[in-house]
Amino acid sequence: VAAGDGARLGELLEPMHSADIADLLEQVDSGRRREILLLAPWHFDGEVLSELDETLREEVIAFLPPEVLAEAVRDLDSDDVVDLIEDLEPPQQEAILDALEDADRVAVEQALGYPEYSAGRLMQREVVRAPEHWTVGETIDHMRANKKTLPDQFYHVIVVDPGIRPVGYVTLGKLLSAKRSVPLTDILEDSFRTIPVTQPGAEVAYLFKQYHLISAPVVDEGGRLVGVITIDDAMNVLDEEHEEDYLRLAGVGDTSLSDKVLTTAKGRFPWLMVNLVTANVAASVISQFEATIQQIVLLAVLMPIVASMGGNAGTQSLAVAVRALATRDLTASNTWRVVRREALVGVLNGLAFGAMMGAVVALWFGEPMIGAVIAVALLLTLIGAAVGGVLIPIALERAGVDPAVASGPFVTTITDIVGFFVFLGIATMVLL
Amino acid sequence: VAAGDGARLGELLEPMHSADIADLLEQVDSGRRREILLLAPWHFDGEVLSELDETLREEVIAFLPPEVLAEAVRDLDSDDVVDLIEDLEPPQQEAILDALEDADRVAVEQALGYPEYSAGRLMQREVVRAPEHWTVGETIDHMRANKKTLPDQFYHVIVVDPGIRPVGYVTLGKLLSAKRSVPLTDILEDSFRTIPVTQPGAEVAYLFKQYHLISAPVVDEGGRLVGVITIDDAMNVLDEEHEEDYLRLAGVGDTSLSDKVLTTAKGRFPWLMVNLVTANVAASVISQFEATIQQIVLLAVLMPIVASMGGNAGTQSLAVAVRALATRDLTASNTWRVVRREALVGVLNGLAFGAMMGAVVALWFGEPMIGAVIAVALLLTLIGAAVGGVLIPIALERAGVDPAVASGPFVTTITDIVGFFVFLGIATMVLL
Repeated sequence: VAAGDGARLGELLEPMHSADIADLLEQVDSGRRREILLLAPWHFDGEVLSELDETLREEVIAFLPPEVLAEAVRDLDSDDVVDLIEDLEPPQQEAILDALEDADRVAVEQALGYPEYSAGRLMQREVVRAPEHWTVGETIDHMRANKKTLPDQFYHVIVVDPGIRPVGYVTLGKLLSAKRSVPLTDILEDSFRTIPVTQPGAEVAYLFKQYHLISAPVVDEGGRLVGVITIDDAMNVLDEEHEEDYLRLAGVGDTSLSDKVLTTAKGRFPWLMVNLVTANVAASVISQFEATIQQIVLLAVLMPIVASMGGNAGTQSLAVAVRALATRDLTASNTWRVVRREALVGVLNGLAFGAMMGAVVALWFGEPMIGAVIAVALLLTLIGAAVGGVLIPIALERAGVDPAVASGPFVTTITDIVGFFVFLGIATMVLL
Repeated sequence: VAAGDGARLGELLEPMHSADIADLLEQVDSGRRREILLLAPWHFDGEVLSELDETLREEVIAFLPPEVLAEAVRDLDSDDVVDLIEDLEPPQQEAILDALEDADRVAVEQALGYPEYSAGRLMQREVVRAPEHWTVGETIDHMRANKKTLPDQFYHVIVVDPGIRPVGYVTLGKLLSAKRSVPLTDILEDSFRTIPVTQPGAEVAYLFKQYHLISAPVVDEGGRLVGVITIDDAMNVLDEEHEEDYLRLAGVGDTSLSDKVLTTAKGRFPWLMVNLVTANVAASVISQFEATIQQIVLLAVLMPIVASMGGNAGTQSLAVAVRALATRDLTASNTWRVVRREALVGVLNGLAFGAMMGAVVALWFGEPMIGAVIAVALLLTLIGAAVGGVLIPIALERAGVDPAVASGPFVTTITDIVGFFVFLGIATMVLL
């Protein structure tokens, strides 16, 4: 298709949603992407750019003619422009800012002045507000008169005092169904809460989820209304947080399928490096028992079983604890109960798997004493892994470190060390 | 506080949001929970029950007097009632259904007739609809006249044909700002799309995220409007999906901090069992090389390093691939490109860590030949892990299995087997 026929390509792109056009651009390789962009640049409006993966955005923007770009960003709400340009290089940022009208430009520049990942970056500045003495009728008349300046999507009219400080909000549903003479202050919602402009995005997302908010006004230090955050912004933040936690559990940092090979390799390097160091510590534990292994080689055969069972059990506890900390289900008041519960889970599974593995070694390999050793080692390792898996993230959280970062690889190698030490240590004591 | 003074407890609970009351109940132990419930049952309305963790819900419901329970559920929207009772035991379900008014009861029973996790379970049946020939004025008058039956939260008026089939929707913002004489069909939204009642919840959540939907009408096989799904429902599904994927990567199934110890231990058992089996396979690989280890014990010391590096690199690739499949960034059209990219990442990191570890063994242990062996083994293992980590989830997805399930533990033990085989195999060939 993309073999020269720009008109035909335009016809095909026309009915597509901007999110799907962005996905299409992400999935073809960069040569093909260039062809598509050169053939039909006018289809790549601001919405497509917003949907595009960050790493591709720079590439695509560099290819678009300036007038197409200017046209593209002019229709976007201020929060979308901020999201679009915050990760671009300064010259590209400038080009886009220059394309905006003066008022929008100021708004975007102010937003960029707030810290990254703060409410100030997430909010849109287009808000629909009404003074507290207005009635339903006055509000509706005002909205009809100012139709052009209303944001694309909004769910509440924010009621403000004379200092433009929010005092409550009214849902559009209530506004539509109430009589014209009803004062706004009679139909305010209970769910109202404001968000400080510097609040981190993750906390904003938590508030939306916990209190089922649809939109919330954002206020500056003086309590004055500066913008509004809507649930779709919160949903995006929540989604990104989850994605990050997931990848961190696997020891991967910020990443994207569109990254270059070298960038990706570098991104994965740090955790593998940490793992190399801890694996060497584990190896040095084993080297303490070289004499024992020399005499009973079966121990070398069996020791990875103890280590990998411990690693998996530890990762299980860790994942549960990290999630519980993130959802605030695990707090100071129930820490002790959760740790005790994990320890008991470790005892139960330790007994089960210790008995199984002990029986296998005793019957299959005909080594009842080594069977007894591995049974005890598995029990102790699984208890240690369960307790460690929950205590490590709790300790990190107390120390002010994000527990999601100290994830999989860390716990796995710690349980390796414990597993090797317990198994080979007991074996040396009992068997030699 | 909860030492007998019900009135004081009531005062404390009064200003709290229902989500916070539910969190409070989840964090105290079961004896204290019972005391709170007995002292002030009237504070535990339907919303608190909705917020409560599923495992605690049964316990709490069993404690509430029937009249409190009946009062509690009567105010909820139908989707919240469905969510509340779908996991309860039949006798408790009956008790709650009996407390509902007839119309609500029928609605809830119909919803329970749809498959679990389908759009039919997520939707609320309270919809605001208007015939396609109405004007803005007629619609507003109708809403004012039927104020009592409007849902708590709604964002669109759904425009239907005479067969109650949705043909579009109008945002409340447009409705408020348009002139009374404008026909509804003139202000329909582009973003309109309907959702089949049997569509799985995960796909519904994907649609909301991809197309930035706020609400979407749900239709039966005949295309007739049966309900509406709103963004907060989609956000919950997305959140649950993420949580599930996260825990699965760690080899944990559905779980909750409120589960009993035995339930938790059982929930973690299956993956540990799988791991025990695969670890035994890995052990049997090692046992093939007992003679080699007997002669060079240093190999037993070093082999866990190869295995754990492979396990971590494999988990990294796996996590990236599973996420990319879930967000549909990884599709048939770019599979080959992604696999090649992962292989190259494996080569780069394999060269880096192989060289490092080889140098350590050669210089620190004074064994240059063993150093060369571990360098080559690390390179091959990291390439294999990177490629396997991405191919395994792709293959599972093609086979119709959720790739998130075949997660961490699986890949880790496979890379163990590969790592041991490559390292000990090369060592046997080269060193003996």
